[in-house]
Amino acid sequence: VLATPIARLVQQLAKLPGIGEKTAARLAFHIMRAAPEDAAALAAAITEVKQKIRFCGVCCNLTESDPCSLCADARRDAGLVCVVAQPQDVVAIERTGGYRGRYHVLHGLLSPLDGIGPEDLRVAELIRRCADTSVPAAEAIKEVILATSSTVEGEATAVYLSKLLRPLGVRASRIATGVPIGGELEYADQLTLARAIDGRREM
Amino acid sequence: VLATPIARLVQQLAKLPGIGEKTAARLAFHIMRAAPEDAAALAAAITEVKQKIRFCGVCCNLTESDPCSLCADARRDAGLVCVVAQPQDVVAIERTGGYRGRYHVLHGLLSPLDGIGPEDLRVAELIRRCADTSVPAAEAIKEVILATSSTVEGEATAVYLSKLLRPLGVRASRIATGVPIGGELEYADQLTLARAIDGRREM
Repeated sequence: VLATPIARLVQQLAKLPGIGEKTAARLAFHIMRAAPEDAAALAAAITEVKQKIRFCGVCCNLTESDPCSLCADARRDAGLVCVVAQPQDVVAIERTGGYRGRYHVLHGLLSPLDGIGPEDLRVAELIRRCADTSVPAAEAIKEVILATSSTVEGEATAVYLSKLLRPLGVRASRIATGVPIGGELEYADQLTLARAIDGRREM
Repeated sequence: VLATPIARLVQQLAKLPGIGEKTAARLAFHIMRAAPEDAAALAAAITEVKQKIRFCGVCCNLTESDPCSLCADARRDAGLVCVVAQPQDVVAIERTGGYRGRYHVLHGLLSPLDGIGPEDLRVAELIRRCADTSVPAAEAIKEVILATSSTVEGEATAVYLSKLLRPLGVRASRIATGVPIGGELEYADQLTLARAIDGRREM
């Protein structure tokens, strides 16, 4: 009963993650009712992003320029690299305003059950960066912060990478787990609380 | 920290209904990782829908051809019109397979609090259809089914339209409210149950 162009748009929108058939229809009808310039801007933004965005040759983040602005920024500490699963994580860490090192984006996490192994991630690129002897000693990577999520996949990926990094003489560290700031002990889950106690620090 | 084309896409996606900043970022990163032909197909579908889809001159539904395929279908009863709030509702009713009349799409519901009055909806078009004396008697509208939702706005819109239709000699009916098929009485809310009892039918 839907006209072909509408059905086609619904079908394309339903390919997006977390967008089901009904949500896709709602979005499609919104687009049809939207101002023509808004719809044109959306279509143009999709096209532009595919044309202009590539992977940074250093950190593998998505970028318009290669190397990306973060890798090209000489004021950032080249000896410290924060490894994250996805580009959104770089945005989240940059938002804290406290980190002044570089990044490496894996584009996923190890997940044997889903058939995702190291060769599907930007692991080889990370090892190559850490083993690179052609850079001046001041710019050599001294520490890698494994900032993958505190999930089964995130932990497994961190453990895997730390084992690869050790023989290279690079220090591997893991972001802290514990009770979130502002979080009530009463509402923290058992595992988080147990980890927070294990990970206690002198003050 | 996001490259301009990425930021632009996130911003455009965040304009869609129910899509917040974080979901928009997730969709944007998916599009960047997607196959180029998938992204191109999405952009093309958006452009195509704006170029090809218009309002049906009869029922105001979104359509590629004017009049739309439902209004052009001579096998459907022209004397019976089902009034709905939005194009998705036509899809939902057609999916039942039981309705053989025509439609009228209001493109919204009356909502004084949101400043949505009759002039913002396709009300004048409905009245014109019902008052049209130029059509053969066999095709004149005899009954209008008010199939707006069972919400405050839906009820208000139905009451408003029924008052406009009465002087035109058109019968106005309202879809039934009651316990959903397969629904347990135990879990039905009080109002639905009270309405279901009030609306009881002899059997």
